[in-house]
Amino acid sequence: MKTLLTLTSAIALVATGAAAQELSEVHAPTEPLVLQSRGSFLVGGESVERTPTQLSTIFGAPPAEGGNITVNQMYVEFMVPAEATGVPVVMLHGATLSGKTYDTTPDGRMGWYEYFVRQGHPTYVPDQISRGRSGFDPGVYNDVRAGVRPVSDLPNVFQQANELNWTQFRIGPSFGEAFPDGQFPIEFADEMSRQAIPDLNAYLPRPNPNHQAMSNLASDIGGAVLMGHSETGAVPLNAAATDASDIAGLILVEPGGCHFTPWTEADMQIFTQIPILAVFGDYLDLETGLADFSWQNAYDSCLRFVEEVNSAGGNATMLYPPDLGITGNSHVLMMDRNNLEIADLMLAWIGENVGPDAQ
Amino acid sequence: MKTLLTLTSAIALVATGAAAQELSEVHAPTEPLVLQSRGSFLVGGESVERTPTQLSTIFGAPPAEGGNITVNQMYVEFMVPAEATGVPVVMLHGATLSGKTYDTTPDGRMGWYEYFVRQGHPTYVPDQISRGRSGFDPGVYNDVRAGVRPVSDLPNVFQQANELNWTQFRIGPSFGEAFPDGQFPIEFADEMSRQAIPDLNAYLPRPNPNHQAMSNLASDIGGAVLMGHSETGAVPLNAAATDASDIAGLILVEPGGCHFTPWTEADMQIFTQIPILAVFGDYLDLETGLADFSWQNAYDSCLRFVEEVNSAGGNATMLYPPDLGITGNSHVLMMDRNNLEIADLMLAWIGENVGPDAQ
Repeated sequence: MKTLLTLTSAIALVATGAAAQELSEVHAPTEPLVLQSRGSFLVGGESVERTPTQLSTIFGAPPAEGGNITVNQMYVEFMVPAEATGVPVVMLHGATLSGKTYDTTPDGRMGWYEYFVRQGHPTYVPDQISRGRSGFDPGVYNDVRAGVRPVSDLPNVFQQANELNWTQFRIGPSFGEAFPDGQFPIEFADEMSRQAIPDLNAYLPRPNPNHQAMSNLASDIGGAVLMGHSETGAVPLNAAATDASDIAGLILVEPGGCHFTPWTEADMQIFTQIPILAVFGDYLDLETGLADFSWQNAYDSCLRFVEEVNSAGGNATMLYPPDLGITGNSHVLMMDRNNLEIADLMLAWIGENVGPDAQ
Repeated sequence: MKTLLTLTSAIALVATGAAAQELSEVHAPTEPLVLQSRGSFLVGGESVERTPTQLSTIFGAPPAEGGNITVNQMYVEFMVPAEATGVPVVMLHGATLSGKTYDTTPDGRMGWYEYFVRQGHPTYVPDQISRGRSGFDPGVYNDVRAGVRPVSDLPNVFQQANELNWTQFRIGPSFGEAFPDGQFPIEFADEMSRQAIPDLNAYLPRPNPNHQAMSNLASDIGGAVLMGHSETGAVPLNAAATDASDIAGLILVEPGGCHFTPWTEADMQIFTQIPILAVFGDYLDLETGLADFSWQNAYDSCLRFVEEVNSAGGNATMLYPPDLGITGNSHVLMMDRNNLEIADLMLAWIGENVGPDAQ
């Protein structure tokens, strides 16, 4: 047999105008990345019985019998650098996004995931349970589809319009407009919207199994700093309240607030035992476009929380870059043009507050 | 401020019995992995307008205005080895699974993704559009939820019970039972079920946008071998039929058949220009547990396809390991205990049939 199309000729045959630019916009780093190990695994999950109707099948008809599926497991990808000198870090994403949040930025630069690894930190990036590669429980959906349950039982599934991203994520003062000192690469705002996926958190049982999973993940790792963002910005606190045994630090990146959960005295006692960093960007007083929500209120809540923890004898810090002369950061600081500068501030905080070398 | 809990003490405080075993079961390789680059990006997608009802929001009420979201984009993660000597390879997963399929196996061994990279091949792993980090279009769902469309408009969403996996994926003769020479690590069958997530392919428009996206991805890369598995086992053929300009080879791993699409003469002409490899495991005549479906029929269809392509002057090969004395492989060969032995056979085929060094 002969080969008519070789790779060489394939490369020569690039379809004119057909190639999208997304891969070509990914910047290759100048230094190779040397990993001791990498891969992916699952945390938690439970086996539940489902009817044939609740499972449905690929070939049109339900299977003859029901059976068990696993739900509420958490997918986690990870990289361990060859020279792992830092504390492990877990980075959990926010609403309508996946673990992609922390990887290559919308304009193709290195994200916090790889950067933390390059700085010596084993780094773990989950997809929230009910999102992305973690999946969700299709039982209710298929019961409604089969007429067994009413439409009103369908949980909320939401996605945010690109137009709303501009004000809600504070990437510009209004759709299509830039802040003079804005750090978000707005010429790639469409790329961020391509990272957006439907948010099925309303499918989750209560308490949110992501809390326990994050705590268990810290234990699996043998000690880790837990980071959350936006929708999960306060989840590291919930994880610590669940079981703080192996949680070495908490980083709360732009949570919607730090008091969603009515913390008990026991919770607050736990929070005094773990170094905590809250991080917010700029332009907090921008109208978000959502009724009854403002980032200023979120910041105020977290600043109050930081003070409460410190008053109780803890070690909590608010990182507000404008105080350091760094202006223009958006809600998605990990995608901003100065994302590595922000990362350096977080890494410095880790170095000073977490782990064997902490002051 | 002082730090009360250091990393050292956190590690000393491992919760007894609380740690799941999944991460601890991941085998670290003995040699470091050196990457020229890695990351993730998106392929394709289109902007569509959605009503406030179709978007819903995180804070309970629909947003004041509708807007555009991006749908039908494909998430792709990738690694390029420091010494990239081989043709790039794209690995697309099958039904009720995600790109995780090709990563760390259920029992914690290296998957095809990392192995191909270690063998010098830049390797790209997408999530199918409508699955995982690629997301899906929530418009129909939210219209039904709001009562704007009837329940009967809800697309099929399916997941396969763990019990059915045993026969449908041919990991054992019946639930809980092993083949004497079975290659699937059945003691970790539960781990595979934890990789399973709901399959929303019925949400896709027609033609399936994954076909065009796979073709575009080959172009973005500048030439690539396209691999599919099971549900997408024949998708590399559809991608080539869409635009084969930059497709250097096609690997069809256990497709449900090779004649789902009624290929035209023009399609067959294209298939004669590209090296094609079909791969099937063992125990093809096992009762799948699904009516009107058998892997033997799938194999027979693909063997006939291979003969059709070769009769027309092409270069197609059937890799059936039992012919080589390698028995017991399941439907998920990339997870089997001998997954790297199977990979070596595929890599040898690539070396002999694809690229500048092909015979």
